[in-house]
Amino acid sequence: MAIANKNIIFVAGLGGIGLDTSREIVKSGPKNLVILDRIENPTAIAELKAINPKVTVTFYPYDVTVPVAETTKLLKTIFAKLKTVDLLINGAGILDDHQIERTIAVNFTGTVNTTTAIMEFWDKRKGGPGGVIANICSVTGFNAIYQVPVYSASKAAALSFTNSLARLAHITGVTAYSINPGITRTPLVHKFNSWLDVEPRVGELLLEHPTQTTLECAQNFVKAIEANKNGAIWQLDLGQLIPVEWTKHWDSHI
Amino acid sequence: MAIANKNIIFVAGLGGIGLDTSREIVKSGPKNLVILDRIENPTAIAELKAINPKVTVTFYPYDVTVPVAETTKLLKTIFAKLKTVDLLINGAGILDDHQIERTIAVNFTGTVNTTTAIMEFWDKRKGGPGGVIANICSVTGFNAIYQVPVYSASKAAALSFTNSLARLAHITGVTAYSINPGITRTPLVHKFNSWLDVEPRVGELLLEHPTQTTLECAQNFVKAIEANKNGAIWQLDLGQLIPVEWTKHWDSHI
Repeated sequence: MAIANKNIIFVAGLGGIGLDTSREIVKSGPKNLVILDRIENPTAIAELKAINPKVTVTFYPYDVTVPVAETTKLLKTIFAKLKTVDLLINGAGILDDHQIERTIAVNFTGTVNTTTAIMEFWDKRKGGPGGVIANICSVTGFNAIYQVPVYSASKAAALSFTNSLARLAHITGVTAYSINPGITRTPLVHKFNSWLDVEPRVGELLLEHPTQTTLECAQNFVKAIEANKNGAIWQLDLGQLIPVEWTKHWDSHI
Repeated sequence: MAIANKNIIFVAGLGGIGLDTSREIVKSGPKNLVILDRIENPTAIAELKAINPKVTVTFYPYDVTVPVAETTKLLKTIFAKLKTVDLLINGAGILDDHQIERTIAVNFTGTVNTTTAIMEFWDKRKGGPGGVIANICSVTGFNAIYQVPVYSASKAAALSFTNSLARLAHITGVTAYSINPGITRTPLVHKFNSWLDVEPRVGELLLEHPTQTTLECAQNFVKAIEANKNGAIWQLDLGQLIPVEWTKHWDSHI
């Protein structure tokens, strides 16, 4: 999918990985980039507009933990303005295993609910045109950072959900793939709580090993968007973009 | 771990797979089987007591979606009576992809919270004696039934969480393994809602393929308890008990 002239909604497009990705997206010249984030950042929005004045960058406040009905209302406003939306990026995430409920609500339920809400506009069974969903999951959904078992599990859930979405594309017309960053040098990683404080130095320890920058991650993110491969499980680690083959342990046969 | 003379807490021990498993456990002669379930079933409790009169079977009402503090209170009562608990089985689960929040709350958050609560009593860093956790996850955590993406994802999360618990055993003294049943002929499977009704016949379709009985599943469950292997990912499918080797796509190196 060429980004040029497309309409893109980016949930958490001002976040650690989000902002650099928004910058890279804007460079590729979409028609609209609609950023939904919890906290407004007018400086960042102004910067994005300045990068490419041909792109319409708009911002709406959005907390992914609101009920689906509220998301639907916001999407109604956005679809009324844009008419069509080509790509939804779900990027909201927190990393704090002291906050069990909130981690699950943001990283897992938030992704499911935002996706569920957009289906009303996209689902081909309802006469919709289909669409594309890129969910930012994590390599910790493959293999955990076991010191943050709740975060890792929430990402395993987001990944599994995304894989299912892809397999439902023939029914819904909506394709999906997952973006799974490895350890990326964002504010998120510097200091965070492990579950029951099993490892107070978990952030520090992670950063003792090779990592990647948010820019490297963002550039590969744009490559994954351009590849537009339904069902792809993209690992974005150490500056590389690698497709992951999921192991089949079991098959539902349906 | 020999079940004889042990103290076991079984969350959802009266459920579809739970009740047959409780029957098999009681036959093996634990000292105490404490069943926590949402709905009391005096007939089932009486039957369990009759199977082996030497076993003390007790019941407490418990909804896994309560806050951790409430679980802690209940566990305090149980630990005061039993003094020690050897095994906690987390078996609460629902299958209804119309209920997104509830599916996540029961299948994922419920497992995390009940585990978090018992750590206060078991964690060796607090002078506790350690313990063993058996989490009932699902083969759909390996590879989804994509028509129920929320259920499958919640099970992927429970599985990931359990794998992490096992790797934390050297810190907490608490070991863990997952019990992953394949399609088992329980009331759960006969009729359930798919996500956005993508496949109204999902239950029927699953049952057109080979399945297992709850008794087969329960007997293999007891074998897994006896094997007592920290970190094991047990697949209980088609009457068989198979250890699954998880694929390493990524390593945190910490």
